[in-house]
Amino acid sequence: MITPDLDKIATDLEGLEETIIARLIDRAQFRRNPPAYRPGESGFMGEKDLSLFALRLKFQEEMDACFGRFAVPEERPFNANLPDTRRMVRLPDNCLQVTDYNVVNLTGKILDSYLDLVPRICAAGDDAQYGSSVEHDVYTIQSISRRIHYGALYVGEIKYLSDPETYGNAIDAGDVDTLEALLTRPSVEQRILKRVEEKVAVLQSAAKIDTRITIDPEVVRAYYAAYIIPLTKEGEILYLINRGKLPDP
Amino acid sequence: MITPDLDKIATDLEGLEETIIARLIDRAQFRRNPPAYRPGESGFMGEKDLSLFALRLKFQEEMDACFGRFAVPEERPFNANLPDTRRMVRLPDNCLQVTDYNVVNLTGKILDSYLDLVPRICAAGDDAQYGSSVEHDVYTIQSISRRIHYGALYVGEIKYLSDPETYGNAIDAGDVDTLEALLTRPSVEQRILKRVEEKVAVLQSAAKIDTRITIDPEVVRAYYAAYIIPLTKEGEILYLINRGKLPDP
Repeated sequence: MITPDLDKIATDLEGLEETIIARLIDRAQFRRNPPAYRPGESGFMGEKDLSLFALRLKFQEEMDACFGRFAVPEERPFNANLPDTRRMVRLPDNCLQVTDYNVVNLTGKILDSYLDLVPRICAAGDDAQYGSSVEHDVYTIQSISRRIHYGALYVGEIKYLSDPETYGNAIDAGDVDTLEALLTRPSVEQRILKRVEEKVAVLQSAAKIDTRITIDPEVVRAYYAAYIIPLTKEGEILYLINRGKLPDP
Repeated sequence: MITPDLDKIATDLEGLEETIIARLIDRAQFRRNPPAYRPGESGFMGEKDLSLFALRLKFQEEMDACFGRFAVPEERPFNANLPDTRRMVRLPDNCLQVTDYNVVNLTGKILDSYLDLVPRICAAGDDAQYGSSVEHDVYTIQSISRRIHYGALYVGEIKYLSDPETYGNAIDAGDVDTLEALLTRPSVEQRILKRVEEKVAVLQSAAKIDTRITIDPEVVRAYYAAYIIPLTKEGEILYLINRGKLPDP
């Protein structure tokens, strides 16, 4: 059972933060490689329209769908029309009060934000290593997506349980501004941003600095401030608005 | 062009070492989960024989093969009978003097060594998160395999070029013992082992120690000593024995 335990959820979010940073550092070892993102230039037989990046993401999610990944609440797919799972997945019970986890799916915005981030962590130019670049891109956006949706769902539920009456009234009134105000804790956000910046530095301190490519801690901090924290909050609001609703028959 | 530059290759190997450690830490967040490794218990429709781990590795490599991964010298497949690439891959030239990179393929031994390592980095028991466990297993063994084959191929070539006559004589005589002695540098190996142990500690120093699961630096050091370094050397010998040979017609 995944219980509404704020300490546990906060720790899990910290762990996911380390994964995101490690993935970004991995991606930064390659150049920006613009052709990998250009539709129609994948060099993939039988695939005229998509970019190599979009194709890799599609293939990855088709495989993941077969293995049952998207039965997990915080694993939301970037693609539609994925195959059904081929695996019997038994997941632990959880405390979430939505039946369709996809009511919180921010993958479109996550994708846009990430493509905007690539030029800020990768050196300009083309090293022809498109396959490795998009492989790391996919692992990175999956880790970002997991962090955002995990936070959105479980922190959303925990906040609700902390004051059901106040949240319930705002939900019933469809009052998004009040929900946003209730969910915003500037001191917590500042602590996360500071910790992320420090972690980027620590995780790179083991690297041989003269040759291994490093990323700027401030860039990751700014990405958290501009996207990860706001999108998590947007997801919390989506969760709350849909909380307790029965699915369409 | 990937040139026989020992500094560059050594730096790349250091980078790959960080990736291996990060992947091991990711895997250690889950329990050992024995059912994920038991043949016939994958819960996967239409798949009666393989374990979930073996299936995940097979699906991953089938996807990777479509994207051209195994055209890269250091990316050697664990599975046979993979599909042909669907992608036109243009790789940089390299300095290697074998035409079939698969003459150096140590994936069987890598797989065995990794399955032996899992109980030493993961807590005993079953958390039912089999899908995540095997996903991380696959990323981890791919990173270990890349490290070993990259070292085997490029260090093999560099060592040869450092003394073509001595190496050439040992190769012509099929004298594996002499090759092994020529390739062994205890002081370099000790330096790698010390660095690996320190890096495990550094990479975990950012973690919240009371809840995030950590791995024992000594276990990773021992794995390097027992497998990664010896298998790299075994691969260097395979490379040298096959160096310059033309493929079978």
